[in-house]
Amino acid sequence: MPETTDTYETHDLISSDRVEGTVVYNLQGERLGTISRFMVNKRTGKAQYAVLQFGGLLGLGSDYYPLPWQILTYDPTQGGYVVNINPEQLENAPHYSDADTPTYDNDYNWRVYSHYGLTYA
Amino acid sequence: MPETTDTYETHDLISSDRVEGTVVYNLQGERLGTISRFMVNKRTGKAQYAVLQFGGLLGLGSDYYPLPWQILTYDPTQGGYVVNINPEQLENAPHYSDADTPTYDNDYNWRVYSHYGLTYA
Repeated sequence: MPETTDTYETHDLISSDRVEGTVVYNLQGERLGTISRFMVNKRTGKAQYAVLQFGGLLGLGSDYYPLPWQILTYDPTQGGYVVNINPEQLENAPHYSDADTPTYDNDYNWRVYSHYGLTYA
Repeated sequence: MPETTDTYETHDLISSDRVEGTVVYNLQGERLGTISRFMVNKRTGKAQYAVLQFGGLLGLGSDYYPLPWQILTYDPTQGGYVVNINPEQLENAPHYSDADTPTYDNDYNWRVYSHYGLTYA
């Protein structure tokens, strides 16, 4: 086990098993939720989504919102990500529960990207 | 919880909490070890290292070898990564134990990259 959490968070790098819990804020500095996981392209190593989790109790009944990496900005001061979306926009965004986790196929990727005004290539 | 492991491994994406255990092979198809974690740049979302784990019993006493992403090739057929290094080269490579996890500072990154003939920018 690491000696401290810092061990895995210094110098711009975070361990993949430590991304859970990173806070996501909107532009007003309000807390939207926390990161559940990154979805990483196995070939390129590039995170395509950070999956925002909120609602539920102790992780039960939570909703998961895949956020395209392009809309995230890491803020080292806050130690979290900032996105330019408001709660209403988020409410209408593609999301899922533990029971209906998507396969992240092309159609789904296209749908998520479109919601945020992005083109899925 | 996901319905199946496949749910998190289809369509090129892998969940950050599912990277552990992915097998790493050399060019001869020999198993070098398994991935312990990715080290991901928080800002860019790009995995900088896949940390190869081997030795030890049930994870106790394992050694960890950060492999620069550039030397990894994902092989969908094998469902794992292929690297062009032999066991002797790996033995001399920078590695650490649970007790001396590095901070991945610039000096360390430079040392790892250099070992694999890469330039750390």
